[in-house]
Amino acid sequence: MVNTYHPGNIGAVARAMKNMGLSELILVQPRVFPDPEASSRAAGAVDVLQQAQVVATVAEALQGCRLVIASSARRRGFAWPMQSARQAMQQAYNAARGGSPVAILFGPERSGLPSETLRLANTHVYIPANPEYSVLNVASAAQILCYELWALHDEGKLPELPDAAEYPSHEAVEHFYQHLQDTLQEIGFINPRHAGDIMIKLRRLFNRARPELGELKILRGILAAIGKLNQ
Amino acid sequence: MVNTYHPGNIGAVARAMKNMGLSELILVQPRVFPDPEASSRAAGAVDVLQQAQVVATVAEALQGCRLVIASSARRRGFAWPMQSARQAMQQAYNAARGGSPVAILFGPERSGLPSETLRLANTHVYIPANPEYSVLNVASAAQILCYELWALHDEGKLPELPDAAEYPSHEAVEHFYQHLQDTLQEIGFINPRHAGDIMIKLRRLFNRARPELGELKILRGILAAIGKLNQ
Repeated sequence: MVNTYHPGNIGAVARAMKNMGLSELILVQPRVFPDPEASSRAAGAVDVLQQAQVVATVAEALQGCRLVIASSARRRGFAWPMQSARQAMQQAYNAARGGSPVAILFGPERSGLPSETLRLANTHVYIPANPEYSVLNVASAAQILCYELWALHDEGKLPELPDAAEYPSHEAVEHFYQHLQDTLQEIGFINPRHAGDIMIKLRRLFNRARPELGELKILRGILAAIGKLNQ
Repeated sequence: MVNTYHPGNIGAVARAMKNMGLSELILVQPRVFPDPEASSRAAGAVDVLQQAQVVATVAEALQGCRLVIASSARRRGFAWPMQSARQAMQQAYNAARGGSPVAILFGPERSGLPSETLRLANTHVYIPANPEYSVLNVASAAQILCYELWALHDEGKLPELPDAAEYPSHEAVEHFYQHLQDTLQEIGFINPRHAGDIMIKLRRLFNRARPELGELKILRGILAAIGKLNQ
Protein backbone atom coordinates (compact mmCIF):
# COMPACT_ATOMS: atom_id res chain seq x y z
CA MET A 1 0.00 0.00 0.00
CA VAL A 2 1.58 3.22 -1.21
CA ASN A 3 1.04 6.51 0.66
CA THR A 4 -2.19 5.40 2.28
CA TYR A 5 -4.07 8.30 3.82
CA HIS A 6 -6.63 6.67 6.15
CA PRO A 7 -5.20 4.23 8.72
CA GLY A 8 -8.62 2.53 8.79
CA ASN A 9 -7.99 1.35 5.25
CA ILE A 10 -4.71 -0.24 6.30
CA GLY A 11 -6.53 -2.19 9.00
CA ALA A 12 -9.27 -3.22 6.60
CA VAL A 13 -6.70 -4.48 4.09
CA ALA A 14 -4.96 -6.50 6.81
CA ARG A 15 -8.27 -8.16 7.63
CA ALA A 16 -9.10 -8.76 3.96
CA MET A 17 -5.69 -10.38 3.53
CA LYS A 18 -5.94 -12.67 6.53
CA ASN A 19 -9.49 -13.66 5.60
CA MET A 20 -8.07 -14.86 2.32
CA GLY A 21 -4.94 -16.51 3.68
CA LEU A 22 -2.38 -13.78 2.92
CA SER A 23 -0.05 -12.14 5.40
CA GLU A 24 2.74 -10.06 3.86
CA LEU A 25 1.71 -6.42 4.04
CA ILE A 26 4.18 -3.68 3.14
CA LEU A 27 3.39 -0.01 3.69
CA VAL A 28 5.23 2.63 1.70
CA GLN A 29 5.18 5.90 3.64
CA PRO A 30 1.73 5.63 5.19
CA ARG A 31 0.46 8.96 6.52
CA VAL A 32 -0.25 7.50 9.97
CA PHE A 33 0.83 4.10 11.22
CA PRO A 34 0.41 2.43 13.64
CA ASP A 35 -2.93 3.87 14.64
CA PRO A 36 -5.87 2.73 16.79
CA GLU A 37 -8.23 3.01 13.82
CA ALA A 38 -6.04 0.61 11.84
CA SER A 39 -6.05 -1.91 14.69
CA SER A 40 -9.79 -1.60 15.19
CA ARG A 41 -10.59 -2.24 11.53
CA ALA A 42 -8.09 -5.10 11.40
CA ALA A 43 -10.18 -6.97 14.03
CA GLY A 44 -8.81 -10.51 14.17
CA ALA A 45 -5.94 -9.65 11.81
CA VAL A 46 -3.93 -7.47 14.16
CA ASP A 47 -1.05 -9.92 13.70
CA VAL A 48 -0.85 -8.99 10.01
CA LEU A 49 -0.58 -5.32 11.03
CA GLN A 50 2.08 -6.08 13.60
CA GLN A 51 4.18 -7.91 11.04
CA ALA A 52 3.66 -5.23 8.38
CA GLN A 53 6.86 -3.63 7.11
CA VAL A 54 7.02 0.13 6.72
CA VAL A 55 9.40 1.28 4.00
CA ALA A 56 10.37 4.57 2.40
CA THR A 57 10.15 3.76 -1.29
CA VAL A 58 8.26 1.54 -3.69
CA ALA A 59 11.60 0.14 -4.86
CA GLU A 60 12.26 -1.19 -1.36
CA ALA A 61 8.82 -2.74 -1.23
CA LEU A 62 9.41 -4.51 -4.53
CA GLN A 63 12.81 -6.00 -3.71
CA GLY A 64 12.94 -9.61 -4.75
CA CYS A 65 9.53 -9.56 -6.45
CA ARG A 66 9.34 -11.34 -9.77
CA LEU A 67 5.88 -10.25 -10.86
CA VAL A 68 4.55 -6.77 -10.16
CA ILE A 69 0.85 -6.02 -10.56
CA ALA A 70 -0.44 -2.47 -10.07
CA SER A 71 -4.07 -1.68 -9.35
CA SER A 72 -5.30 1.08 -11.60
CA ALA A 73 -8.80 2.45 -11.99
CA ARG A 74 -8.21 4.16 -15.27
CA ARG A 75 -5.92 4.37 -18.23
CA ARG A 76 -3.37 7.12 -18.11
CA GLY A 77 -0.77 8.13 -20.66
CA PHE A 78 0.86 5.16 -22.30
CA ALA A 79 -1.48 2.21 -22.17
CA TRP A 80 -0.01 -0.68 -20.18
CA PRO A 81 -1.23 -4.26 -20.38
CA MET A 82 -4.53 -4.26 -18.52
CA GLN A 83 -6.18 -7.31 -17.00
CA SER A 84 -9.40 -7.82 -15.09
CA ALA A 85 -9.19 -8.86 -11.44
CA ARG A 86 -9.85 -12.49 -12.33
CA GLN A 87 -7.29 -12.65 -15.13
CA ALA A 88 -4.58 -10.87 -13.18
CA MET A 89 -5.07 -12.99 -10.06
CA GLN A 90 -4.83 -16.12 -12.20
CA GLN A 91 -1.43 -14.90 -13.39
CA ALA A 92 -0.41 -13.98 -9.84
CA TYR A 93 -1.50 -17.36 -8.54
CA ASN A 94 0.41 -19.25 -11.20
CA ALA A 95 3.52 -17.19 -10.56
CA ALA A 96 3.34 -17.66 -6.79
CA ARG A 97 2.80 -21.40 -7.17
CA GLY A 98 5.86 -21.47 -9.37
CA GLY A 99 7.91 -19.88 -6.57
CA SER A 100 8.02 -16.29 -7.85
CA PRO A 101 7.25 -13.64 -5.23
CA VAL A 102 4.40 -11.43 -6.46
CA ALA A 103 3.63 -7.84 -5.43
CA ILE A 104 0.25 -6.18 -5.81
CA LEU A 105 0.46 -2.41 -5.51
CA PHE A 106 -2.32 -0.17 -4.22
CA GLY A 107 -2.09 3.60 -4.44
CA PRO A 108 -3.24 6.48 -2.25
CA GLU A 109 -7.00 6.84 -1.82
CA ARG A 110 -7.64 9.97 -3.84
CA SER A 111 -5.22 9.87 -6.68
CA GLY A 112 -4.27 6.22 -7.12
CA LEU A 113 -0.75 5.21 -8.05
CA PRO A 114 1.32 7.86 -9.85
CA SER A 115 2.43 7.16 -13.42
CA GLU A 116 6.04 6.50 -12.50
CA THR A 117 4.95 3.75 -10.10
CA LEU A 118 2.48 2.26 -12.59
CA ARG A 119 5.40 1.91 -15.00
CA LEU A 120 7.23 -0.40 -12.61
CA ALA A 121 4.53 -3.02 -13.09
CA ASN A 122 4.37 -5.91 -15.52
CA THR A 123 0.62 -5.57 -15.73
CA HIS A 124 -2.18 -3.39 -14.45
CA VAL A 125 -5.30 -4.80 -12.86
CA TYR A 126 -8.74 -3.21 -12.88
CA ILE A 127 -11.90 -4.31 -11.14
CA PRO A 128 -14.90 -4.42 -13.46
CA ALA A 129 -17.35 -1.88 -12.09
CA ASN A 130 -20.25 0.45 -12.84
CA PRO A 131 -18.88 3.03 -15.29
CA GLU A 132 -20.96 5.70 -13.56
CA TYR A 133 -19.03 5.21 -10.33
CA SER A 134 -16.13 2.89 -10.80
CA VAL A 135 -13.68 3.95 -8.09
CA LEU A 136 -13.66 1.39 -5.30
CA ASN A 137 -12.42 2.02 -1.80
CA VAL A 138 -8.84 0.73 -1.61
CA ALA A 139 -9.69 -1.92 1.00
CA SER A 140 -12.65 -3.10 -1.08
CA ALA A 141 -10.41 -3.43 -4.11
CA ALA A 142 -7.87 -5.39 -2.06
CA GLN A 143 -10.67 -7.58 -0.71
CA ILE A 144 -11.79 -8.51 -4.21
CA LEU A 145 -8.28 -9.34 -5.41
CA CYS A 146 -7.53 -11.39 -2.28
CA TYR A 147 -10.85 -13.18 -2.70
CA GLU A 148 -10.06 -14.07 -6.31
CA LEU A 149 -6.71 -15.49 -5.17
CA TRP A 150 -8.34 -17.54 -2.44
CA ALA A 151 -11.00 -18.80 -4.85
CA LEU A 152 -8.23 -20.17 -7.10
CA HIS A 153 -6.48 -21.74 -4.14
CA ASP A 154 -9.73 -23.10 -2.78
CA GLU A 155 -10.95 -24.63 -6.00
CA GLY A 156 -8.33 -27.25 -5.30
CA LYS A 157 -7.82 -27.74 -8.97
CA LEU A 158 -4.92 -26.55 -11.02
CA PRO A 159 -6.40 -24.75 -13.98
CA GLU A 160 -2.99 -23.99 -15.42
CA LEU A 161 0.52 -25.18 -14.87
CA PRO A 162 2.62 -23.11 -12.51
CA ASP A 163 5.23 -20.87 -14.07
CA ALA A 164 8.08 -23.08 -15.17
CA ALA A 165 10.36 -20.20 -16.07
CA GLU A 166 12.68 -18.38 -13.71
CA TYR A 167 12.26 -14.64 -13.57
CA PRO A 168 14.72 -11.93 -12.57
CA SER A 169 14.17 -9.83 -9.47
CA HIS A 170 12.76 -6.35 -9.65
CA GLU A 171 16.23 -4.90 -8.96
CA ALA A 172 17.81 -6.91 -11.79
CA VAL A 173 15.20 -5.58 -14.19
CA GLU A 174 15.83 -2.02 -13.02
CA HIS A 175 19.58 -2.50 -13.55
CA PHE A 176 18.84 -3.60 -17.08
CA TYR A 177 16.84 -0.41 -17.74
CA GLN A 178 19.65 1.70 -16.37
CA HIS A 179 22.19 -0.15 -18.52
CA LEU A 180 19.93 0.26 -21.55
CA GLN A 181 19.50 3.98 -20.97
CA ASP A 182 23.26 4.48 -20.48
CA THR A 183 23.98 2.57 -23.68
CA LEU A 184 21.41 4.46 -25.74
CA GLN A 185 22.93 7.71 -24.57
CA GLU A 186 26.46 6.54 -25.36
CA ILE A 187 25.54 5.58 -28.90
CA GLY A 188 23.73 8.88 -29.38
CA PHE A 189 20.30 7.35 -29.83
CA ILE A 190 18.80 9.36 -27.01
CA ASN A 191 19.61 12.79 -25.78
CA PRO A 192 20.39 12.69 -22.05
CA ARG A 193 18.17 15.73 -21.58
CA HIS A 194 15.14 14.12 -23.23
CA ALA A 195 15.54 10.46 -22.35
CA GLY A 196 12.14 10.16 -20.74
CA ASP A 197 9.80 9.36 -23.56
CA ILE A 198 11.88 6.69 -25.30
CA MET A 199 12.75 5.01 -22.03
CA ILE A 200 9.10 4.88 -20.98
CA LYS A 201 8.19 3.28 -24.31
CA LEU A 202 10.97 0.72 -24.02
CA ARG A 203 10.04 0.01 -20.43
CA ARG A 204 6.45 -0.61 -21.45
CA LEU A 205 7.57 -2.96 -24.23
CA PHE A 206 9.89 -5.02 -22.04
CA ASN A 207 7.60 -5.05 -19.00
CA ARG A 208 4.87 -6.40 -21.25
CA ALA A 209 7.19 -9.17 -22.39
CA ARG A 210 8.28 -9.85 -18.78
CA PRO A 211 11.77 -11.15 -19.64
CA GLU A 212 12.82 -14.41 -18.07
CA LEU A 213 16.15 -14.69 -16.28
CA GLY A 214 17.92 -16.16 -19.33
CA GLU A 215 16.43 -13.58 -21.65
CA LEU A 216 17.54 -10.73 -19.45
CA LYS A 217 21.08 -12.14 -19.55
CA ILE A 218 21.00 -12.08 -23.34
CA LEU A 219 19.81 -8.47 -23.32
CA ARG A 220 22.53 -7.43 -20.87
CA GLY A 221 25.05 -9.32 -23.02
CA ILE A 222 24.02 -7.35 -26.08
CA LEU A 223 24.41 -4.07 -24.19
CA ALA A 224 27.86 -5.16 -23.00
CA ALA A 225 28.86 -5.99 -26.60
CA ILE A 226 27.72 -2.55 -27.74
CA GLY A 227 29.67 -0.98 -24.88
CA LYS A 228 32.90 -2.63 -26.07
CA LEU A 229 32.43 -1.31 -29.59
CA ASN A 230 32.22 2.18 -28.34
CA GLN A 231 35.42 2.10 -26.32
CA MET B 1 -28.62 -4.86 6.48
CA VAL B 2 -30.06 -6.09 9.75
CA ASN B 3 -29.21 -4.38 13.06
CA THR B 4 -25.97 -2.90 11.80
CA TYR B 5 -23.82 -1.56 14.62
CA HIS B 6 -21.24 0.65 12.89
CA PRO B 7 -22.65 3.39 10.63
CA GLY B 8 -19.36 3.31 8.73
CA ASN B 9 -20.27 -0.14 7.47
CA ILE B 10 -23.59 1.16 6.13
CA GLY B 11 -21.72 3.81 4.14
CA ALA B 12 -19.20 1.28 2.87
CA VAL B 13 -21.99 -1.04 1.71
CA ALA B 14 -23.68 1.84 -0.12
CA ARG B 15 -20.42 2.52 -1.97
CA ALA B 16 -19.86 -1.17 -2.73
CA MET B 17 -23.39 -1.35 -4.15
CA LYS B 18 -23.11 1.72 -6.36
CA ASN B 19 -19.67 0.61 -7.60
CA MET B 20 -21.37 -2.56 -8.81
CA GLY B 21 -24.49 -0.96 -10.25
CA LEU B 22 -26.91 -1.64 -7.37
CA SER B 23 -28.99 0.92 -5.49
CA GLU B 24 -31.74 -0.53 -3.28
CA LEU B 25 -30.48 -0.53 0.28
CA ILE B 26 -32.83 -1.38 3.15
CA LEU B 27 -31.78 -0.97 6.78
CA VAL B 28 -33.55 -2.98 9.47
CA GLN B 29 -33.20 -1.14 12.80
CA PRO B 30 -29.71 0.23 12.36
CA ARG B 31 -28.15 1.37 15.65
CA VAL B 32 -27.33 4.83 14.25
CA PHE B 33 -28.54 6.24 10.96
CA PRO B 34 -28.09 8.69 9.32
CA ASP B 35 -24.59 9.45 10.57
CA PRO B 36 -21.61 11.45 9.29
CA GLU B 37 -19.41 8.33 9.35
CA ALA B 38 -21.86 6.58 7.03
CA SER B 39 -21.83 9.50 4.60
CA SER B 40 -18.06 9.77 4.69
CA ARG B 41 -17.53 6.09 3.91
CA ALA B 42 -20.20 6.20 1.19
CA ALA B 43 -18.07 8.75 -0.72
CA GLY B 44 -19.64 9.09 -4.17
CA ALA B 45 -22.59 6.87 -3.19
CA VAL B 46 -24.32 9.27 -0.81
CA ASP B 47 -27.37 9.07 -3.10
CA VAL B 48 -27.73 5.37 -2.25
CA LEU B 49 -27.74 6.27 1.45
CA GLN B 50 -30.26 9.03 0.95
CA GLN B 51 -32.63 6.65 -0.83
CA ALA B 52 -32.12 3.88 1.73
CA GLN B 53 -35.27 2.74 3.50
CA VAL B 54 -35.22 2.25 7.24
CA VAL B 55 -37.68 -0.39 8.47
CA ALA B 56 -38.52 -2.04 11.77
CA THR B 57 -38.54 -5.71 10.84
CA VAL B 58 -36.93 -8.14 8.43
CA ALA B 59 -40.42 -9.09 7.20
CA GLU B 60 -40.98 -5.51 6.03
CA ALA B 61 -37.63 -5.49 4.27
CA LEU B 62 -38.48 -8.69 2.41
CA GLN B 63 -41.90 -7.63 1.16
CA GLY B 64 -42.33 -8.53 -2.49
CA CYS B 65 -39.04 -10.45 -2.72
CA ARG B 66 -39.13 -13.73 -4.59
CA LEU B 67 -35.69 -15.01 -3.72
CA VAL B 68 -34.10 -14.46 -0.32
CA ILE B 69 -30.41 -15.13 0.19
CA ALA B 70 -28.89 -14.84 3.66
CA SER B 71 -25.20 -14.36 4.23
CA SER B 72 -23.89 -16.72 6.83
CA ALA B 73 -20.32 -17.33 7.91
CA ARG B 74 -21.00 -20.68 9.46
CA ARG B 75 -23.52 -23.46 9.72
CA ARG B 76 -25.80 -23.27 12.69
CA GLY B 77 -28.52 -25.62 13.81
CA PHE B 78 -30.48 -27.11 10.93
CA ALA B 79 -28.28 -27.13 7.86
CA TRP B 80 -29.79 -24.93 5.15
CA PRO B 81 -28.90 -25.07 1.46
CA MET B 82 -25.48 -23.45 1.34
CA GLN B 83 -23.92 -21.94 -1.77
CA SER B 84 -20.64 -20.22 -2.42
CA ALA B 85 -20.68 -16.53 -3.34
CA ARG B 86 -20.30 -17.32 -7.02
CA GLN B 87 -23.02 -19.96 -7.10
CA ALA B 88 -25.50 -17.92 -5.08
CA MET B 89 -24.95 -14.77 -7.13
CA GLN B 90 -25.51 -16.78 -10.31
CA GLN B 91 -28.88 -17.81 -8.90
CA ALA B 92 -29.63 -14.24 -7.82
CA TYR B 93 -28.69 -12.89 -11.22
CA ASN B 94 -30.85 -15.40 -13.05
CA ALA B 95 -33.78 -14.63 -10.77
CA ALA B 96 -33.44 -10.86 -11.16
CA ARG B 97 -33.16 -11.17 -14.93
CA GLY B 98 -36.32 -13.25 -14.87
CA GLY B 99 -38.10 -10.39 -13.12
CA SER B 100 -38.04 -11.73 -9.54
CA PRO B 101 -36.94 -9.25 -6.89
CA VAL B 102 -34.05 -10.67 -4.89
CA ALA B 103 -32.99 -9.81 -1.33
CA ILE B 104 -29.56 -10.43 0.12
CA LEU B 105 -29.52 -10.24 3.91
CA PHE B 106 -26.54 -9.21 6.03
CA GLY B 107 -26.56 -9.55 9.81
CA PRO B 108 -25.10 -7.53 12.67
CA GLU B 109 -21.31 -7.31 12.81
CA ARG B 110 -20.61 -9.47 15.83
CA SER B 111 -23.19 -12.19 15.78
CA GLY B 112 -24.36 -12.44 12.19
CA LEU B 113 -27.99 -13.14 11.37
CA PRO B 114 -29.96 -14.94 14.08
CA SER B 115 -31.31 -18.42 13.34
CA GLU B 116 -34.91 -17.25 12.95
CA THR B 117 -33.85 -14.81 10.21
CA LEU B 118 -31.64 -17.38 8.49
CA ARG B 119 -34.70 -19.60 8.23
CA LEU B 120 -36.52 -16.95 6.19
CA ALA B 121 -34.02 -17.47 3.39
CA ASN B 122 -34.25 -19.76 0.38
CA THR B 123 -30.52 -20.28 0.47
CA HIS B 124 -27.51 -19.30 2.49
CA VAL B 125 -24.42 -17.85 0.94
CA TYR B 126 -20.89 -18.14 2.29
CA ILE B 127 -17.72 -16.54 1.07
CA PRO B 128 -14.88 -19.02 0.70
CA ALA B 129 -12.19 -17.91 3.14
CA ASN B 130 -9.23 -18.91 5.25
CA PRO B 131 -10.59 -21.38 7.85
CA GLU B 132 -8.26 -19.85 10.44
CA TYR B 133 -10.03 -16.50 10.17
CA SER B 134 -13.09 -16.72 8.01
CA VAL B 135 -15.27 -13.88 9.29
CA LEU B 136 -15.28 -11.02 6.84
CA ASN B 137 -16.25 -7.48 7.64
CA VAL B 138 -19.88 -7.02 6.58
CA ALA B 139 -19.05 -4.38 3.98
CA SER B 140 -16.29 -6.59 2.55
CA ALA B 141 -18.73 -9.47 2.27
CA ALA B 142 -21.25 -7.20 0.54
CA GLN B 143 -18.50 -5.97 -1.79
CA ILE B 144 -17.67 -9.48 -2.90
CA LEU B 145 -21.29 -10.45 -3.54
CA CYS B 146 -21.97 -7.23 -5.44
CA TYR B 147 -18.78 -7.77 -7.44
CA GLU B 148 -19.85 -11.28 -8.40
CA LEU B 149 -23.20 -9.90 -9.58
CA TRP B 150 -21.54 -7.20 -11.65
CA ALA B 151 -19.12 -9.72 -13.15
CA LEU B 152 -22.10 -11.74 -14.42
CA HIS B 153 -23.75 -8.63 -15.78
CA ASP B 154 -20.53 -7.37 -17.32
CA GLU B 155 -19.37 -10.67 -18.83
CA GLY B 156 -19.29 -10.70 -22.57
CA LYS B 157 -20.05 -7.00 -22.66
CA LEU B 158 -16.67 -5.35 -22.55
CA PRO B 159 -14.22 -7.41 -20.56
CA GLU B 160 -11.33 -5.99 -22.53
CA LEU B 161 -10.77 -2.79 -24.39
CA PRO B 162 -10.29 -3.13 -28.10
CA ASP B 163 -6.75 -2.76 -29.42
CA ALA B 164 -6.15 0.93 -29.77
CA ALA B 165 -2.59 0.46 -30.95
CA GLU B 166 -1.36 0.01 -34.50
CA TYR B 167 0.72 -3.07 -35.12
CA PRO B 168 3.38 -3.69 -37.77
CA SER B 169 2.90 -6.22 -40.54
CA HIS B 170 4.42 -9.66 -40.36
CA GLU B 171 7.00 -8.65 -42.97
CA ALA B 172 8.01 -5.57 -41.00
CA VAL B 173 8.57 -7.73 -37.94
CA GLU B 174 10.63 -10.20 -39.98
CA HIS B 175 12.73 -7.34 -41.33
CA PHE B 176 13.39 -6.29 -37.77
CA TYR B 177 14.56 -9.80 -36.83
CA GLN B 178 16.87 -9.86 -39.86
CA HIS B 179 18.24 -6.44 -38.98
CA LEU B 180 18.71 -7.57 -35.36
CA GLN B 181 20.55 -10.72 -36.41
CA ASP B 182 22.82 -8.81 -38.81
CA THR B 183 23.62 -6.27 -36.10
CA LEU B 184 24.38 -8.89 -33.45
CA GLN B 185 26.75 -10.57 -35.88
CA GLU B 186 28.46 -7.30 -36.76
CA ILE B 187 29.11 -6.46 -33.12
CA GLY B 188 30.38 -9.95 -32.45
CA PHE B 189 27.63 -10.93 -30.02
CA ILE B 190 26.63 -13.94 -32.04
CA ASN B 191 28.68 -16.24 -34.20
CA PRO B 192 27.18 -16.42 -37.72
CA ARG B 193 27.56 -20.19 -37.61
CA HIS B 194 25.60 -20.59 -34.36
CA ALA B 195 23.11 -17.76 -34.52
CA GLY B 196 20.08 -19.98 -34.10
CA ASP B 197 19.61 -20.33 -30.38
CA ILE B 198 20.00 -16.68 -29.43
CA MET B 199 17.78 -15.54 -32.28
CA ILE B 200 15.07 -17.99 -31.29
CA LYS B 201 15.15 -16.73 -27.71
CA LEU B 202 15.00 -13.09 -28.81
CA ARG B 203 12.19 -13.87 -31.21
CA ARG B 204 10.22 -15.50 -28.42
CA LEU B 205 10.79 -12.49 -26.14
CA PHE B 206 9.75 -9.89 -28.71
CA ASN B 207 6.86 -11.91 -30.05
CA ARG B 208 5.54 -12.19 -26.53
CA ALA B 209 5.72 -8.41 -26.16
CA ARG B 210 4.10 -7.97 -29.62
CA PRO B 211 5.74 -4.64 -30.48
CA GLU B 212 3.48 -1.88 -31.71
CA LEU B 213 4.34 0.06 -34.84
CA GLY B 214 5.96 2.92 -32.94
CA GLU B 215 7.92 0.57 -30.72
CA LEU B 216 9.29 -1.33 -33.70
CA LYS B 217 10.48 1.98 -35.14
CA ILE B 218 12.38 2.68 -31.94
CA LEU B 219 14.00 -0.76 -32.06
CA ARG B 220 15.00 -0.30 -35.70
CA GLY B 221 16.35 3.14 -34.80
CA ILE B 222 18.54 1.63 -32.10
CA LEU B 223 19.91 -0.94 -34.55
CA ALA B 224 20.64 1.81 -37.07
CA ALA B 225 22.50 3.81 -34.39
CA ILE B 226 24.60 0.76 -33.55
CA GLY B 227 25.29 0.25 -37.27
CA LYS B 228 26.72 3.75 -37.56
CA LEU B 229 29.07 3.17 -34.62
CA ASN B 230 30.54 0.18 -36.33
CA GLN B 231 31.32 1.90 -39.63
